[in-house]
Amino acid sequence: MFILAAGAVSATEITVFLLSFGVLLGMARLFGEIARKLGQPTVLGEILAGVVLGQTVLAYFSPELYGFLFPSYADPASSANGADGAVVYSNVRVAFDMFLVLCVAFLLLVAGLEVDLSSVWRQGKAAASVSIAGMVIPFALGFGACYAAGLTVGPEAAGMGADADALAFALFVGIAMSITALPVIAKILMDLNMLKSDLGMLVMSSAMVNDLIGWIGFAIVLAMISVSDPTEAVVGPGAGSVVWTIVLTLGFVGGMLTIGRVLVHRSLPYVQANTAWPGGTIAFVLVIALFAAALTEWIGIHSIFGAFIAGVVIGDSAHLKERTRDTIEQFITNIFAPVFFASIALRVNFVAEFDLFLVVGVLTIAIIGKLFGCYLGAKLVGMGPRESWATGFGMCARGAMEIILGQLALEAELITEPMFVAIVIMALVTSLFPGPVMQWLLGQKQRRNLADVIADKRYIPRLSASTATEAIRELTPLAAAAIGHDADELTKSVLRRERIVPTGLEHGLAVPHAAVPGLKKPTVVIGVSEHGVDFNSRDGEPAHIICLLISSAESQTDQIELLDMVARAFADEQARDAARWAGTFTEFKAALTVHTTKAAH
Amino acid sequence: MFILAAGAVSATEITVFLLSFGVLLGMARLFGEIARKLGQPTVLGEILAGVVLGQTVLAYFSPELYGFLFPSYADPASSANGADGAVVYSNVRVAFDMFLVLCVAFLLLVAGLEVDLSSVWRQGKAAASVSIAGMVIPFALGFGACYAAGLTVGPEAAGMGADADALAFALFVGIAMSITALPVIAKILMDLNMLKSDLGMLVMSSAMVNDLIGWIGFAIVLAMISVSDPTEAVVGPGAGSVVWTIVLTLGFVGGMLTIGRVLVHRSLPYVQANTAWPGGTIAFVLVIALFAAALTEWIGIHSIFGAFIAGVVIGDSAHLKERTRDTIEQFITNIFAPVFFASIALRVNFVAEFDLFLVVGVLTIAIIGKLFGCYLGAKLVGMGPRESWATGFGMCARGAMEIILGQLALEAELITEPMFVAIVIMALVTSLFPGPVMQWLLGQKQRRNLADVIADKRYIPRLSASTATEAIRELTPLAAAAIGHDADELTKSVLRRERIVPTGLEHGLAVPHAAVPGLKKPTVVIGVSEHGVDFNSRDGEPAHIICLLISSAESQTDQIELLDMVARAFADEQARDAARWAGTFTEFKAALTVHTTKAAH
Repeated sequence: MFILAAGAVSATEITVFLLSFGVLLGMARLFGEIARKLGQPTVLGEILAGVVLGQTVLAYFSPELYGFLFPSYADPASSANGADGAVVYSNVRVAFDMFLVLCVAFLLLVAGLEVDLSSVWRQGKAAASVSIAGMVIPFALGFGACYAAGLTVGPEAAGMGADADALAFALFVGIAMSITALPVIAKILMDLNMLKSDLGMLVMSSAMVNDLIGWIGFAIVLAMISVSDPTEAVVGPGAGSVVWTIVLTLGFVGGMLTIGRVLVHRSLPYVQANTAWPGGTIAFVLVIALFAAALTEWIGIHSIFGAFIAGVVIGDSAHLKERTRDTIEQFITNIFAPVFFASIALRVNFVAEFDLFLVVGVLTIAIIGKLFGCYLGAKLVGMGPRESWATGFGMCARGAMEIILGQLALEAELITEPMFVAIVIMALVTSLFPGPVMQWLLGQKQRRNLADVIADKRYIPRLSASTATEAIRELTPLAAAAIGHDADELTKSVLRRERIVPTGLEHGLAVPHAAVPGLKKPTVVIGVSEHGVDFNSRDGEPAHIICLLISSAESQTDQIELLDMVARAFADEQARDAARWAGTFTEFKAALTVHTTKAAH
Repeated sequence: MFILAAGAVSATEITVFLLSFGVLLGMARLFGEIARKLGQPTVLGEILAGVVLGQTVLAYFSPELYGFLFPSYADPASSANGADGAVVYSNVRVAFDMFLVLCVAFLLLVAGLEVDLSSVWRQGKAAASVSIAGMVIPFALGFGACYAAGLTVGPEAAGMGADADALAFALFVGIAMSITALPVIAKILMDLNMLKSDLGMLVMSSAMVNDLIGWIGFAIVLAMISVSDPTEAVVGPGAGSVVWTIVLTLGFVGGMLTIGRVLVHRSLPYVQANTAWPGGTIAFVLVIALFAAALTEWIGIHSIFGAFIAGVVIGDSAHLKERTRDTIEQFITNIFAPVFFASIALRVNFVAEFDLFLVVGVLTIAIIGKLFGCYLGAKLVGMGPRESWATGFGMCARGAMEIILGQLALEAELITEPMFVAIVIMALVTSLFPGPVMQWLLGQKQRRNLADVIADKRYIPRLSASTATEAIRELTPLAAAAIGHDADELTKSVLRRERIVPTGLEHGLAVPHAAVPGLKKPTVVIGVSEHGVDFNSRDGEPAHIICLLISSAESQTDQIELLDMVARAFADEQARDAARWAGTFTEFKAALTVHTTKAAH
């Protein structure tokens, strides 16, 4: 009747669908985590997973396995609905493509939730200057280069798709050059501990303005092509002109940002008061996003645009609780987003479609245009040279947004596959360098977590010590070994400090320490005591987690950084408990990771 | 290339898909919340949403709208892949059906996560006695009745599907009669505040054993039919016999519960230590569920069985953190589950397919068999009569599980539509009465939350009082009006008590109170003071949230219950802050709801 009925989805198709979903999600997460370990954006790993599983690598080595996991559409000429192989594959493909529409719509919903309209307002003039200069210049360069390339090397070599007209193509490239990736830049600023700084807020606000203008511009470009394509106009108002679609788009945006915003803000407390929490609110948010997405798809622009605007409107309400937002974001960014990004690279051959001319051209325009545009915008409002350059480099970060734009443009045959490959590579490259460059320009240190600096060989799960002195004598040899120092001398130095100022903190923590002259890399040794050791703490509690900190005698900041790491790692009671009762190093580290990620959110 | 390419999913199909998903989710949640408000299980409302949107109501009033939102499969004879209406609908249907496979697999993953193998072990003999007697008797009754009905009224009138043989049909009905719904009974026990009591743990453990045995039995029945259906055996090992499928199924279960369990338990801390948290763990859990689901689908039993066992294995690990579990459960039970339950009733006409004989027969056997079976099982291990009856009634609760079983059986044409309707009605009815009956048998009160008893007209958002006496004078008239009492007298009574024992609690709370003779329903009046009022609290803080409690002088428990509600509602600092700064009653209630649901989890 329902799922297994004749002509419908078969057990084989279900098996293939579940399997390919599992493989795609698993590989995307794995590669994403590896990228993260290497200090790179996770999206880089997720896209690489698609490269490995897709046309570029897997199809090269085993076309059969690739075809089995990620089937193509059936040849329309060869079959209707029957029991043969072609239909099996076709149904899986249909389901997967529709599922990806959901993935990317929900991803844009989350991106919209991150836009903070009121902070854009507050930054006012500076944000306007940076974002406008930072859009106009790369847009003009991209737009001009397309026209020039179209005249010199011809439209196809310039990356223009079969379905595009020259104006729509040039507009699209201009827009793709001028959007900054909000999630990527947010992540970079968070890593640098600068998200809430003046510079951080300026960069974020400018990126938000960019996003809003860029997406509205792109919606208009999509409208320009969709009305010229009669097969798309089955339900929508596509019978009208481009103007009509643009009017509907602007009407939608205007209506959502005014009436929609007030309605959502007023309904949220009502929904929270009267439904199971947070589930009722989560469903409310997704339903609004789905309707907005359906509406923009019907208008003739893409569904993700509606989801994005819905996110902006919902995220703007102060009534949206942190935990609701967090549950939505966790699920979507960890399940839907990796599947989407991995799927991007699946069906494109990154080796065969690599075009050096396009890659270099797109990269150059994207970086030069954005860097100088934003630098100029920042200088104009009176920022210093270092800060202006840092703003420029920060705004260079592309990522998810450009790739989604490129994906849509490829589907709409606005651009060629080599152009798509060039845009993806540009988005990846520009995600990699802004972090390190900003760090260098501003002398800002990446904030590290305790979990990143501890090691199995500097961890004692069960200390036998019953006094502070014994505990220090147990821990210092491990530190001495790590830094190549004499153990006795180090022990004496730690004990001397301990005698002057006891290092017991509250909540069963103790942080004995010593400063060693000429030390290159500070070291932490951790011991856990089951019965507790008296470290003369302020609250009188015995210490259960003892962190021996060895810092450089020359650096003023080393020791402060170590203390900050320890304090953050154990600020949470659950983390302290989990760490105290951990039996192995992995469990101990898991306890810290749980906490530090939470706090960093 | 990808989504919009020729023959693939069109913009119209995307619009319809997003719209029908939004409508289904929105209506399911709305009806679910209404059911919850009326003290009924949310699943009742979710299924009713499907009745309203589906064949039963919407298709009756507007077949066009129904056909547009929830399209059928295209007629295979009429079209291949083209641009006409039939294919548009077919693709949406394929995507929706595959999406529902995901929904129900994830739902069973969550159900599996709730199974606590070790508590089953601890309850040992009692759980075994209750669950075995509670399965054998309804199974025997169901099995026997099917055979008897088949002989007397004929197979179709007995509800046997076209594809079934008599043995498989009778086995299925027997199993459907004998499974208790774990999520429903857990919810009932939670509402009665009995989940952690001895009786509660016994009922839960017995239900878990039931679930495990029932699902394995059902997998075997599915294997019996799927091997006799050649179209299903495209990838799987279906070429073999029933025996081979059963061996694979038992091998899968055995392997997962032993090796799989150890592997998951060992990998979880590693995953938590080395991936972004909680996202990495969430993805890990879903990937395992997807692979297990694909494996069981390949074996020839249903994918949800694999997801369920994966959930049992993962949920058993002590390393699975509460927040990870919570994020998964929130998203799945609030998004995927409502869509699935609403979809159940979509394509069945509950009016046309209603068969009184079947409905009464199924209900009688399900209730009588389970009630007496579990009562006997409980008596056998020496439980008292009230507790034994309470156990019997608790175990009567069916719900999600029977409906999913029925759905699968209907798809496999093991049962007829009228039989499916009878099973759904049975599942709903048996979800309704166990709660009230257990409450009455055990004299247990439903635990209420403060948010359930406050009202707009008994709430003052800005008290003008600056002393405790003034605050009490401001609040008591509202209470007096609510209970029809003299205001002056009530004020005096509250002030008298306040003078004897000041009622300022910690954290800016105060609970002035009075007991009124002959009062039927206790009353709470709440006032918020911006500047704070001195209520002589233990921590010296002025009171910002003042809860006036009026209880009955005759009841010993009234006042304790009220105090407990206040304490729970404001235990969380965030809830106190949100309540204190709420501008309207709705915002105030939202602040409480957020907290109370969290604590009840």
